[in-house]
Amino acid sequence: MSVRHAPSAPATNLPGHQVVLGEPEPLRLDCGIALGPFPVAYQTYGELNADKSNAILVCHALTLDQFVAEDHPITGKPGWWDMVVGPGKALDTDRFQVICANVLGGCMGTVGPKEINPETGEPWGLDFPVITIGDMVRAQKMLVDHLGIEQLFCVTGGSMGAMQALEWAVRYPGQIFASIPIAGAARHTAQNIAFHEVGRQAIMADPDWRGGDYMRQGVIPNRGLAVARMAGHITYLSEVALHRKFGRNLQDREGLSYGFDADFQVESYLRHQGMTFVERFDANSYLYITRAMDYFDLPAEFDGQLPRAFEGTETRFCVISFTSDWLFPTSENRAVVHALNAAAANVSFVEVESDKGHDAFLLDEPEFAKVLAGFIDGCAEHHGLNAKR
Amino acid sequence: MSVRHAPSAPATNLPGHQVVLGEPEPLRLDCGIALGPFPVAYQTYGELNADKSNAILVCHALTLDQFVAEDHPITGKPGWWDMVVGPGKALDTDRFQVICANVLGGCMGTVGPKEINPETGEPWGLDFPVITIGDMVRAQKMLVDHLGIEQLFCVTGGSMGAMQALEWAVRYPGQIFASIPIAGAARHTAQNIAFHEVGRQAIMADPDWRGGDYMRQGVIPNRGLAVARMAGHITYLSEVALHRKFGRNLQDREGLSYGFDADFQVESYLRHQGMTFVERFDANSYLYITRAMDYFDLPAEFDGQLPRAFEGTETRFCVISFTSDWLFPTSENRAVVHALNAAAANVSFVEVESDKGHDAFLLDEPEFAKVLAGFIDGCAEHHGLNAKR
Repeated sequence: MSVRHAPSAPATNLPGHQVVLGEPEPLRLDCGIALGPFPVAYQTYGELNADKSNAILVCHALTLDQFVAEDHPITGKPGWWDMVVGPGKALDTDRFQVICANVLGGCMGTVGPKEINPETGEPWGLDFPVITIGDMVRAQKMLVDHLGIEQLFCVTGGSMGAMQALEWAVRYPGQIFASIPIAGAARHTAQNIAFHEVGRQAIMADPDWRGGDYMRQGVIPNRGLAVARMAGHITYLSEVALHRKFGRNLQDREGLSYGFDADFQVESYLRHQGMTFVERFDANSYLYITRAMDYFDLPAEFDGQLPRAFEGTETRFCVISFTSDWLFPTSENRAVVHALNAAAANVSFVEVESDKGHDAFLLDEPEFAKVLAGFIDGCAEHHGLNAKR
Repeated sequence: MSVRHAPSAPATNLPGHQVVLGEPEPLRLDCGIALGPFPVAYQTYGELNADKSNAILVCHALTLDQFVAEDHPITGKPGWWDMVVGPGKALDTDRFQVICANVLGGCMGTVGPKEINPETGEPWGLDFPVITIGDMVRAQKMLVDHLGIEQLFCVTGGSMGAMQALEWAVRYPGQIFASIPIAGAARHTAQNIAFHEVGRQAIMADPDWRGGDYMRQGVIPNRGLAVARMAGHITYLSEVALHRKFGRNLQDREGLSYGFDADFQVESYLRHQGMTFVERFDANSYLYITRAMDYFDLPAEFDGQLPRAFEGTETRFCVISFTSDWLFPTSENRAVVHALNAAAANVSFVEVESDKGHDAFLLDEPEFAKVLAGFIDGCAEHHGLNAKR
């Protein structure tokens, strides 16, 4: 595999690394299609040590990307895990190299429906194959191989990132020392599939979606994507967080308007979430990535026996959930812990008290950061990595 | 007020009663506009006794209507409260007359955005004034006056119906003997406003909505309305109910399709909910009625002191909630009970154990039906109504 300019460079000039993977051997996707060569965009923070034993792979959630700990090149906002990744932080970039790649199917430089299909010279659109969490992880494995890393010190991530952290542990048990799935699940629930389906239907209902062919036709299904984002966003927060943040406060007005403007702050906030999301995210990517999450079902791949997925594993696990997370509730995380226990794996489980909902893993939650730092420090010691500088 | 054919008869020939209210005196809406004359469609079950003391007013929820206990004239499905309304049932039509009117802003024969604006001869569309729960109840009061009923024996309803049952108790305390708000709240929460806003944005994002003028332009924003319904529908169920009903079961297939068809039963079910809803509901009505719910805030009308809303009331209350209802959770219902207690009102409170979510009040829940029957029987005795036949 060689590092060269991608066959389909993203429209924006993204900072960071891009590599072409899948040549000469393509990536065999779960759907049966062989994909490759294809570009993968990734970012690193901190230095790899001499024996390449200090790499932490961070796996991002549905709408996030590889810009973990730096200002985002499009939005200008701080990195999404700035809170815990950086010098002296829980994922200490003075000691570890943190790597994060845009997922397969994404829209920030890795191959996905908005990139060019080399066979046609046009954007993939719905011709892009439906991918799975397993496919995402296999692509990451190709990247890790390309970087010459034999064993990752740790794989971690929240939400869909947790699914990847679990998939890594199941598929490549010898190649990851520790796994920290945060606010995740071993399979996507019916309610979560339902919310995703609403988002997809909102996108597909937008006439500008054009059966997924909008890029070639020069339009963008912004309205549908914004509605999908709004529906999703509610599920990332808790009722308590919404109440504290907005309650029934009015937006820039003294009284009710008796109309359909955004009278309430919560409406204005949601509309803003929808409008800004479309500037940085591709509608088809939203379809593909939500689908990958829906398809995630680790127990099903082991005849309903999740403990079998972890048989004989030597990976150290730390499963973290948040009390007010109703999208990936503690019960789903605990199911993972029970399976790990049944497989006699080395596992810690922490339910962090928080009223911030599913998004708590992205927010300033000192207890969470402490748990993360403590587990990583302990693993580093067992792994013979240098003590904290 | 006279009973005559409505100035704007609904397109479908609906069975049941329709009356024109608001003449000579119009209805003064909360927004300041005077509305009238206007049609109200209603249905009755059972006979009014000689002194008209046995009337139970049932208030319907967001997407329901006056067809409480008979097959629906459009969908052919059983009445939405067939389970508890009928001879020998909790709301025993052998003893009581059950009355239910389509709400103001609705689309089943009562004036709303799809009816004809007499001033223009065209459908109201967005020229229809924004209405409130208070306005709905004032219109019902006009109907009750028209029927010559001085005091309702009972006002009850679930969800938005509970809001109306509370509003009745607050505005016309001497004119209702009992109030049974079920799965309701004294004010709409930020999370619920947020879900409604997603639904409204989905409708408004549909190009066939045409700024609300779709009826005149001969189109219907079916796609947007279907998405709104899907988003709403998830909130009516519990995670447990969705899991039990569908889990991750596939729809008419052996394996995953690796596409965007409805692979999962839950997707197929939601799509069906969306598609059938548009056959019986008007998109603009959805905007108006959700808005009325968002605006509902009883405490705010009493300087944040909800007990003051119930000062000196002689109405008997029975507040009912369901354990798995996360849309109108027990905590919101309990807030009403606390206010009633603080006002020294006569109040019972029952939290019914159910895993069916918000929709539990529409479903076969024997404990719920028993609570309802027990409270009504007790009230009937105190009210000097004939014992059960």
